[in-house]
Amino acid sequence: MTDEVVLALDAMGGDAAPQMVIDGIAIAKTRFPKVRYLLVGDEPRLKEMLASRQDVAEVCTIRHAPDSVSADAKPSQVLRTGRKSSMWMAVDAVAKGEAGGVVSAGNTGALMAVSKFVLRTVPGIDRPAIAGLFPSQRGETVMLDLGGNVDCNANNLVEFAIMGEVFCRIVLGIERPSVGILNVGSEDAKGNSAVKTAHSILKSHHMQLSFQGFVEGNDIGAGTVDVIVTDGFTGNVALKTIEGTAKMFSRFLKEAFTHSFLSKIGYLMARPAMHRLKLRADPRRYNGAMFLGLNGITVKSHGGTDALGFANAIGCAVDLVSQDFNAKIKEELAHLAEPEQPAQVASL
Amino acid sequence: MTDEVVLALDAMGGDAAPQMVIDGIAIAKTRFPKVRYLLVGDEPRLKEMLASRQDVAEVCTIRHAPDSVSADAKPSQVLRTGRKSSMWMAVDAVAKGEAGGVVSAGNTGALMAVSKFVLRTVPGIDRPAIAGLFPSQRGETVMLDLGGNVDCNANNLVEFAIMGEVFCRIVLGIERPSVGILNVGSEDAKGNSAVKTAHSILKSHHMQLSFQGFVEGNDIGAGTVDVIVTDGFTGNVALKTIEGTAKMFSRFLKEAFTHSFLSKIGYLMARPAMHRLKLRADPRRYNGAMFLGLNGITVKSHGGTDALGFANAIGCAVDLVSQDFNAKIKEELAHLAEPEQPAQVASL
Repeated sequence: MTDEVVLALDAMGGDAAPQMVIDGIAIAKTRFPKVRYLLVGDEPRLKEMLASRQDVAEVCTIRHAPDSVSADAKPSQVLRTGRKSSMWMAVDAVAKGEAGGVVSAGNTGALMAVSKFVLRTVPGIDRPAIAGLFPSQRGETVMLDLGGNVDCNANNLVEFAIMGEVFCRIVLGIERPSVGILNVGSEDAKGNSAVKTAHSILKSHHMQLSFQGFVEGNDIGAGTVDVIVTDGFTGNVALKTIEGTAKMFSRFLKEAFTHSFLSKIGYLMARPAMHRLKLRADPRRYNGAMFLGLNGITVKSHGGTDALGFANAIGCAVDLVSQDFNAKIKEELAHLAEPEQPAQVASL
Repeated sequence: MTDEVVLALDAMGGDAAPQMVIDGIAIAKTRFPKVRYLLVGDEPRLKEMLASRQDVAEVCTIRHAPDSVSADAKPSQVLRTGRKSSMWMAVDAVAKGEAGGVVSAGNTGALMAVSKFVLRTVPGIDRPAIAGLFPSQRGETVMLDLGGNVDCNANNLVEFAIMGEVFCRIVLGIERPSVGILNVGSEDAKGNSAVKTAHSILKSHHMQLSFQGFVEGNDIGAGTVDVIVTDGFTGNVALKTIEGTAKMFSRFLKEAFTHSFLSKIGYLMARPAMHRLKLRADPRRYNGAMFLGLNGITVKSHGGTDALGFANAIGCAVDLVSQDFNAKIKEELAHLAEPEQPAQVASL
């Protein structure tokens, strides 16, 4: 099914672009040899780079974009003046049907604003959400929203649950993912009104979704459920809290190991183990925040990523496009609209 | 100043109570020899235990409580029927002025409900907050609220900032603690209306508070500011996310070290380093959630804590009582009420 997949790539987004984008395509090609790319950016520069990369050139079409979006540009400003940027033109290629999805390592806020403006939300989805993958003790956990929507009502959370579940099925290949809503306790009576109402909607309606009720912050790392649903404020804080805790832990570990001569020798002996740990929590494995709920797939790669991370972001976009994420979302939304079955009344 | 400090202790709260409470007093006594305790619980049992512990008995007065609060009791139920419990009677001793503060390792929700009901909030404080200490790369960070208030408005956040700052001065001994509001970005325009309004209040008023603006989830572990202010929903999720991430990291580390024969040898060599790491992140060092803003100090020790953890919770209560936390809060609140200085107009 990846035969017909075309992705638009913002060749100029990210700290190490465009070299990292081109090297990322080369890596992705080993996994998806038939995917084709619309490479949007500075044409003369890209042409020159591709001249020596026949392997990459043969799966790419270059489209010239005279501008690019800087990392610190304000989304509102990009919306006003960014139409000739590589980011905008790449997203626009999706809107025009020339590509099924877009990958950019550029400015997150601008990419979200442009994607919303150009692609619009899928009918039935009020607001797009940002989803990401997190390492857990049981494997990987999907969490959304990670910052697209600072204030969310119950309906938004229900839509996130539907999108997250389909995303998990496609990207992690889990047949029947379990879903939980992030809260301050697992009892039904806890939390604010948005999570409580979303809880009762997800409990009551007759979708296929395996809803497990409320989960707590520690369930992200424990991997208690496959999909964790939350508002963009809490999700963004949780995402960055995980990053900060991991960094602190690494620093403590490093300091503990360099504290004495003996501990340094211990470190040398333990190096393969440490390397294994590092690989397991490698942020490049979890690279890519997905904007779900738009008419087309947008994958945001980390701005500081390298070619391997960018290739993973491409892989995620290929999975979502080739397995028609949006068609599956629409199916699930249709279930939501079905009326409740009337309770069976026993004959007297 | 600890000469006159009396603490009420819920002798029956916590998994290992009352033994852990008595052993905790013995440890605390080495640091605070003059502090006295009102030990509230099952008198016959406590008397028997103290018979062989003269060192502890000499700083304790036992008060009989016929009941205790179970770990899974609902706060509302405890409010209705818990007046004869060790928890309630310990809190009540503070309300009656017999003790300056109370420490309990019992049911958190019940302790918060009873403390609010019996002690009431300090004039000028709308809602009490739960504060805690977190390890960071720079030392320790205070964060509040950790779950007392699921929905917070801007004024609540401002009050939390004031209480957190005074708490940090007293407990961590930092003369001029820096304060930040937890948000989804550090730019002034980001976030929901509560954090934005709180930001402008804290920026504009003329208190001594060293307000640093917005911080993000990763700033908790980085230790960017001394005090992090947030609503109880986000704070509770962040607290538990840190716990979950630390657990996952420890598990990954253990698995990495037990993966092969060589890595096991590496682990043996690195054991002192690992032990150092463990000590640094020892949850017992950070034991105790403080309920701030009530007429009296309530410290909640972790339910599963041991004597060392309980002694740390006692230490925190002693610091807050002996340095008159509530008097300092009132001083700061008075600043908040002062009118803004009119802008100086240059003479023409």
